[in-house]
Amino acid sequence: MAAAKAAPHRTSIGARRNPQTEAAVLQAARNLLIEKGYAGFSIDEVARRAGAGKPTIYRWWPTKADLFIAVYTADKDAAFVVPDTGNLRRDLVAYTSALWSFWRNSPSGRAFRALIAEAQGSEAALAALKEKFLATRLAPLRRLFEQAAARGDIPAAGIAARLALYVGFNWYRLLTGELDEDAGLIAAVAAVIGTDKG
Amino acid sequence: MAAAKAAPHRTSIGARRNPQTEAAVLQAARNLLIEKGYAGFSIDEVARRAGAGKPTIYRWWPTKADLFIAVYTADKDAAFVVPDTGNLRRDLVAYTSALWSFWRNSPSGRAFRALIAEAQGSEAALAALKEKFLATRLAPLRRLFEQAAARGDIPAAGIAARLALYVGFNWYRLLTGELDEDAGLIAAVAAVIGTDKG
Repeated sequence: MAAAKAAPHRTSIGARRNPQTEAAVLQAARNLLIEKGYAGFSIDEVARRAGAGKPTIYRWWPTKADLFIAVYTADKDAAFVVPDTGNLRRDLVAYTSALWSFWRNSPSGRAFRALIAEAQGSEAALAALKEKFLATRLAPLRRLFEQAAARGDIPAAGIAARLALYVGFNWYRLLTGELDEDAGLIAAVAAVIGTDKG
Repeated sequence: MAAAKAAPHRTSIGARRNPQTEAAVLQAARNLLIEKGYAGFSIDEVARRAGAGKPTIYRWWPTKADLFIAVYTADKDAAFVVPDTGNLRRDLVAYTSALWSFWRNSPSGRAFRALIAEAQGSEAALAALKEKFLATRLAPLRRLFEQAAARGDIPAAGIAARLALYVGFNWYRLLTGELDEDAGLIAAVAAVIGTDKG
């Protein structure tokens, strides 16, 4: 219907996201995470810094967890490439190094730590972590293991266990602030879960 | 010196812990974790429920993290037995089932989730998690892997990787609230890290 009109007519300015406001809010959230971390993070302060209204922020990101997810996914989609060396063990070494480097060198490490922390005190945040984040964000990593099983690197029956072990390993290092390159450990982990055994 | 006196004389009532107060504080912390979870936890409320002074609580447990650690370790020492079947794979199946059951059925699961969450917003809490908790609490689990290496179940060079993978796996399940018995996954995880490969 709108195609016939000379200019598009916004019937509801609030329901459609304004890209500039969205970018300002995400940038304010990033900066606040860097400066204050999880304990000092508040929607009030994000709204103040972004010059945005709190109702707008809550309409687009109903919980803090949604805002952490938005920061994280925008940064990761822009910066992170899933390796594909044709060998699971080599893929996992490359993936781990790249992931830890990404977490260290962007606000995303803090955003992800904040997301996990928030999920420990809020059922809505836990649901967001599981249903809005993990349900889709683990797909590329799962594909890495599935392709390896198709090649015969690992047994198909061992995909779920390896994926859970690997995700847990990375969370553990992130949540204990141990993200410095540790080539020996990374290679040993890739050897245990990246080859055919069990 | 005190031995010569008829009755012990307390020179500093504050420096020595009163066992009744300690038990009351830990029980108040447990109950508050069960009722309100991490987001609703405060030292103010623990003090009120325990009938204890805040200065006393802060002297014995300088941070919330210290209080979470105290609740967790008291409960785990009382209720958790490390399995010893003579086979790492079987040990890990038994350990995982027992650990998840312990986390599900005591306030300790919530205490541990709260400890990890607190460590994401406070450097003091992160230091407590690493130096007061992990540095000592992982010892029995590490011994399980070391004994397995001594028996030849796994290579000695692979202990650190397997320990990190296993701890991370359990954290991941705890932090996503996925602690229901999953015999297939638990067995598959034990097969991947509990046998000699890599």
